[in-house]
Amino acid sequence: MSPFAGSASRTREWHHLRLTVADGVATVTLARPEKLNALTFGAYADLRDLLAELSRERSVRALVLAGGGRGFCSGGDVDDIIGATLAMDTAELVDFNRMTGQVVRAVRECPFPVIAAVHGVAAGAGAVLALAADFRVADPSARFAFLFTRVGLSGGDMGAAYLLPRVVGLGHATRLLMLGEPVRAAEAERIGLISELAEDGGADDRAQRLARRLADGPALALAQTKALLTAELDMPLGAAVELDASTQALLMTGADYAEFHAAFTQKRDPQWRGR
Amino acid sequence: MSPFAGSASRTREWHHLRLTVADGVATVTLARPEKLNALTFGAYADLRDLLAELSRERSVRALVLAGGGRGFCSGGDVDDIIGATLAMDTAELVDFNRMTGQVVRAVRECPFPVIAAVHGVAAGAGAVLALAADFRVADPSARFAFLFTRVGLSGGDMGAAYLLPRVVGLGHATRLLMLGEPVRAAEAERIGLISELAEDGGADDRAQRLARRLADGPALALAQTKALLTAELDMPLGAAVELDASTQALLMTGADYAEFHAAFTQKRDPQWRGR
Amino acid sequence: MSPFAGSASRTREWHHLRLTVADGVATVTLARPEKLNALTFGAYADLRDLLAELSRERSVRALVLAGGGRGFCSGGDVDDIIGATLAMDTAELVDFNRMTGQVVRAVRECPFPVIAAVHGVAAGAGAVLALAADFRVADPSARFAFLFTRVGLSGGDMGAAYLLPRVVGLGHATRLLMLGEPVRAAEAERIGLISELAEDGGADDRAQRLARRLADGPALALAQTKALLTAELDMPLGAAVELDASTQALLMTGADYAEFHAAFTQKRDPQWRGR
Repeated sequence: MSPFAGSASRTREWHHLRLTVADGVATVTLARPEKLNALTFGAYADLRDLLAELSRERSVRALVLAGGGRGFCSGGDVDDIIGATLAMDTAELVDFNRMTGQVVRAVRECPFPVIAAVHGVAAGAGAVLALAADFRVADPSARFAFLFTRVGLSGGDMGAAYLLPRVVGLGHATRLLMLGEPVRAAEAERIGLISELAEDGGADDRAQRLARRLADGPALALAQTKALLTAELDMPLGAAVELDASTQALLMTGADYAEFHAAFTQKRDPQWRGR
Repeated sequence: MSPFAGSASRTREWHHLRLTVADGVATVTLARPEKLNALTFGAYADLRDLLAELSRERSVRALVLAGGGRGFCSGGDVDDIIGATLAMDTAELVDFNRMTGQVVRAVRECPFPVIAAVHGVAAGAGAVLALAADFRVADPSARFAFLFTRVGLSGGDMGAAYLLPRVVGLGHATRLLMLGEPVRAAEAERIGLISELAEDGGADDRAQRLARRLADGPALALAQTKALLTAELDMPLGAAVELDASTQALLMTGADYAEFHAAFTQKRDPQWRGR
Repeated sequence: MSPFAGSASRTREWHHLRLTVADGVATVTLARPEKLNALTFGAYADLRDLLAELSRERSVRALVLAGGGRGFCSGGDVDDIIGATLAMDTAELVDFNRMTGQVVRAVRECPFPVIAAVHGVAAGAGAVLALAADFRVADPSARFAFLFTRVGLSGGDMGAAYLLPRVVGLGHATRLLMLGEPVRAAEAERIGLISELAEDGGADDRAQRLARRLADGPALALAQTKALLTAELDMPLGAAVELDASTQALLMTGADYAEFHAAFTQKRDPQWRGR
C-alpha cells in the first residue's frame, strides 16, 4: 500500500499491457506479439499511469519491461497511431506527443530501477523506451533503431535527443538519430547502449536475475542513486555536490547504513530493509 | 474526457479537498477551516492526484485554488504532519518530502493556468502552493510567510528556493526564506509576489473572474505559454528560441489562429476553441 | 532562392575556400594544400559568412567539409595568424577569437547536416571544425590533434571544451585537450570521435555518398533532429520532452509524414519533399 495515498484508487486491471508483481519485482510485458508489440494510444496511457501508481508504493523495488513474442517493441502502430495522427488537429497532436514524453519521464523518475529486456526489434518509440530504462539487457538478436526520420519525423522524439547523446556520446547519437539505421547487439555493446549482453534467448532470464538482485538490495539507497543520476545530468557541479551531501547525510540516518555496519562487524551479510 | 485515457479510472470523490467544475473552471477549496486549512497527508496526496487527472483532460481550462474560512492555508498540520514526521524513518521522510514537491511540480506542469485566491494566512507549504500558481490574487488581509526556518527546517522546501528568487528576485527571496517573516499584501504587491490586489473580501470573486476570462480564451495557446514559461527558466537562450519557434509554427497550424484572422477581417470577436 | 531574403546580396565568389553545390549537396573545400590548408583570417570569415548564407536557403540539404591535398586542416596559420595575433590589441583579440567561435556555432546551428571528410592531419582549429560537424568520415590516415596547449593556449578553443566531452566523454576529452597528442583513426573510432572509418583514400567518396543520402532524405525532419540534438545538450529532461513534443506535433502536420504513410500503405518508397 502507498504510504501516502489519497482518494484515488489503484487500477485493478491494465488492459493494454500485462503486469505481474512477485516479491518486489514488477514485470511489465508488452503483449501484442502479432504486431511486434506495436504501441497503441492505450498502451502509452497505461505505461504512464502504471508507472505513476507504482511510484507511490514501496511494494515495487525493481521493474522489468519486456516484450512478448518475436521482439521487444516495433514502436508506434502504423495503423493505430500514424494513421490516426494524420487526422488529428493541433491540440490533439500536442496531447499525444506530450503523453509519449510523459512515459519517458515516468521511466526516468520512478523511484526504482527499470530494466529493459530486449530481444529482436526495439524500434522507434520502442527504442526510446529501452533507452529511458536504467539497464538494457539484450539478447544477441536485439536490434535498436531510432527510425523516426524514416517516417519523416524528428529523431528527437520522447526525449531521445536528450538521452541518447548522454548514453552513447553526441557522435554516435547523431548518426543513430539522423540515419535511423539499426544497431545490432555487438555494436550496442561497443558504444555503451546496452548494459549487459545475454546468451542466446537469455535476456528475459538475465533481466529477472538483475531485477531480483536490485530488489533484494538497499532499495532506498538505489532509489536515491537513480534520482541523483537523473537530476545531476542537468546541474552544475556545485549544485550536484550539494545534493549529494544532503542525500548522503540523510541516508546516514537510515536503517540500512546501520545494518551494513552491524553486519560487517558480525561478519554476516546485511539484511537490507530499504529504509 | 481524456483524449488519451487508458485503463485507470477517474476518481469519483476527493475526500481531502473540495472540487467543483463549472464550464471549464475548476475550483479546488482547501476545506478544514477550523484548522486554517492546515494540510494533511491526504490533502497533499489528493492535490497531487487531482492535478494529474485534470491534466489529462481538455475539460478544465483554468483552476482556482482557494481556502475556506478565515485564511488560505496555514501549511502542514502541526499535529498531523510535524508530529508524525518525528516518528518516521528515513524512507518515510523521503516519501513524504518527495510527495510535497510533486504537488508543486504538478501545479507548474499542468496544462492550464492556476490562480491562487489568497486571503488571510498563506504560511509554510501554503505559501509555496500559492507561489507555484501562475497567478496570485490577494485580499488586503493576505499574509505570506515562508516560515520553514522557524520550525528548524530549510527554507528550500517544495521548490521554494528555486521559485521564489525567480518571482521576486534573489535579494527579497533570501530575506523571506531566511527570516520567515510575514509579507503583507502591500509589500507583496510592491515586490511582485502577487499578481493582483483585490478589494476587501474580494479575492475569491476576482480570482473567479480571472479564471473565467482565461477559460474563455485560446486554451491551447495559454497552455503552451505556461509550458514555455516553466521550461525556459532552465534553458539557454538558443534552445529557448528554438522551442518558441517550434511551438509558434505549430500553433500557426491551429484553428484559433485562423479564427483570429477571420474574426478580425469580419470585425467581430474571435470564438476561441482551444485547438 | 531564400524564402525570406532581405536586402543583403548573396556572395558571388568565395575567395578563401572552394564551394561547389550539386543537387542539394554543398561541398566546401579548404584549398591551401601547400600549407596543409592552414586557416587564414579570410578563411574563418568566409566559413562564418558562407554558413550564414546557406542557412537562409532551402537549396542546400547537406554539406561536406573537406581538405584539398595531403590533409584536412592544420589549424590556424602560424605566420598569418599566430604572428598577427601577437601584434593585436585587446579589442582585436576579442574580435578574432569571437569570430572563430562563431564558425563553430554556425556549423552546429545551420539547418542541414555537416559531414567532415578527414584524411591526414586535422589539428588545432581544424580538429575543432571536424568536431563541430554532425558526422566525421575518416580515412585511415586521419590524425586529430587538439594541440592548443602546445602553443601555450587553452584547450578550450572555439567550444572544444564544450563539445569534446559530449562526444567522447570527459576522461578522453581531458586527456586530448590537456596533452594535445594526436588521435589516430583506430583510436578515434574506438572512443567515438569518428562516425565512419573509410577504406584507404575513400573518405571523400564516402562523405559524398552520405551527403547524397541525407540530401535525398526528409530535409525538414533532419534539420529539426539536428536542432534538437544541439539544443537538448543544454536542457533539463522536462524541457527536452516539451521541445520534442512541440516539434513532433508540428512535423506531424507536414507533407513528408503524410507521404510516409501513403508510401507505406501503397508499398512504395516515399518521395521526400522536405516539407
